[in-house]
Amino acid sequence: MTDANWLYENFDTAGSAIGFRVNKKLDEVQSPFQKIEIYESTDWGNVMLIDGAMMVTTRDNFLYHEMMSHPALFTHAAPKTVVIIGGGDCGTLREVLRHPGVEKAVQCDIDEQVTRMAEKYFPELCESNGDARAEILFDDGIAYMANCAPGSVDIVIVDSTDPVGPAEGLFNKAFFESCHRALKDDGILVQQSESPLVLLDLIKAMRAEMGKAGFTTFQTLPFPQPCYPTGWWSCTLARKGQGFDFREADARAKPFETLYYTADIHKGAQSLPPFVAKALGEG
Amino acid sequence: MTDANWLYENFDTAGSAIGFRVNKKLDEVQSPFQKIEIYESTDWGNVMLIDGAMMVTTRDNFLYHEMMSHPALFTHAAPKTVVIIGGGDCGTLREVLRHPGVEKAVQCDIDEQVTRMAEKYFPELCESNGDARAEILFDDGIAYMANCAPGSVDIVIVDSTDPVGPAEGLFNKAFFESCHRALKDDGILVQQSESPLVLLDLIKAMRAEMGKAGFTTFQTLPFPQPCYPTGWWSCTLARKGQGFDFREADARAKPFETLYYTADIHKGAQSLPPFVAKALGEG
Repeated sequence: MTDANWLYENFDTAGSAIGFRVNKKLDEVQSPFQKIEIYESTDWGNVMLIDGAMMVTTRDNFLYHEMMSHPALFTHAAPKTVVIIGGGDCGTLREVLRHPGVEKAVQCDIDEQVTRMAEKYFPELCESNGDARAEILFDDGIAYMANCAPGSVDIVIVDSTDPVGPAEGLFNKAFFESCHRALKDDGILVQQSESPLVLLDLIKAMRAEMGKAGFTTFQTLPFPQPCYPTGWWSCTLARKGQGFDFREADARAKPFETLYYTADIHKGAQSLPPFVAKALGEG
Repeated sequence: MTDANWLYENFDTAGSAIGFRVNKKLDEVQSPFQKIEIYESTDWGNVMLIDGAMMVTTRDNFLYHEMMSHPALFTHAAPKTVVIIGGGDCGTLREVLRHPGVEKAVQCDIDEQVTRMAEKYFPELCESNGDARAEILFDDGIAYMANCAPGSVDIVIVDSTDPVGPAEGLFNKAFFESCHRALKDDGILVQQSESPLVLLDLIKAMRAEMGKAGFTTFQTLPFPQPCYPTGWWSCTLARKGQGFDFREADARAKPFETLYYTADIHKGAQSLPPFVAKALGEG
């Protein structure tokens, strides 16, 4: 909803709202899957909404994109093949491709219009789309993972919208089983896992579904994300038994710049607040 | 402003907004200093607003109160005398008094009505108000610090509202000079320092004023705080030359429970994201 020039997202699940002051609506498209809107804000650059939910702002998307990619890529010993399910704004793809060892990164988002809008209004997120290692598909991510060759992928990153609408099927056992089969034995699944303050039940339920699919070790990493409900978000990593020690020396010597991620931020995120650890049975 | 049963705070400085779904307004008082309102929310317990700005919710205040107190108290070698300027909701006082070594904690808030409202709607924050070590004053914090005996205080915590209105005088050189004089040589000043994403200029300006007042070493610690603009907040510690290594073993063995603060969270917060470190000249 909007009030004069303020644009709000009322997040019913948690009874909290996030908003930005905007100058004008720049674009709007109803794709076969969802409504995508772009606003020009006064202080946050451009803002993309999908079905009324804030997805990306120019100003703060680096937090999410860096944390969805670098912790997993520095945890895997030598990631070469990465699949991104969702992620149509291409920001996660850009971060993944910063790792020189990555040989192939497939991005499979069901909605081509998200990428077309990103190219137009968030061109900086799409600057690696022409990388020879990138393959950008517009297709059903559930089918893509189901058809993936077994043991062919090092890291699957599920960069999805909330678990309602098109993304609902990306949070259940059947999908996670496909990911488990596609991943090599030392592979890592990464899923955006919502707010650690108000959606702990969702994180627990998601981990339970991952567990039913065969994953046995989990790590939830919190990070700030102002444009998402409560301003505090998380990603969850799942593996087939391995731990989550990461290549700290490599992370410290990384050959690219970041705005948020560092080896120390990574280590810090690994220490969960007691109320989160307790809820997740790690306390 | 409110829309049906949603209550928003439009934060003009950063062009962002925070909101909560509420059932009803429980109370309202216009004190000589400010308007205090209490709402019952659907998911966040009670919410206190001062002059339209979200101050405290039942659900998430632990983040702020723990981070305003424990990092400083575990950084000081043996804090005995603590002064809290502002902090009328008494939540910071409660956390300070969890430290058995503290012999005296003075809370000086200019507005008695804040404490009266907290006693009624946030009684859990006031549960240590009867502690024999607590002294609760309703007076001008600027005058209190100016009149403090030199070298008499171990830690000053400035738990204030934003630097407009009654709290404006708590962010400048004159006030920080009073704090500097009142603090012992190994003392620590703690100031809530707003959002590390959108208010870096304020943090820099505040550090500059602290510097003019004689403080020479600084540490800004970010933490999540959903009810404040952007959901990402910070406190800044200032000292007279000493560093910020903390009593890690004591923090690990602390004789009280916390929901957010741990020694590892403290260490994690000490590692600033590169964009913050760079802006503060620590990169």
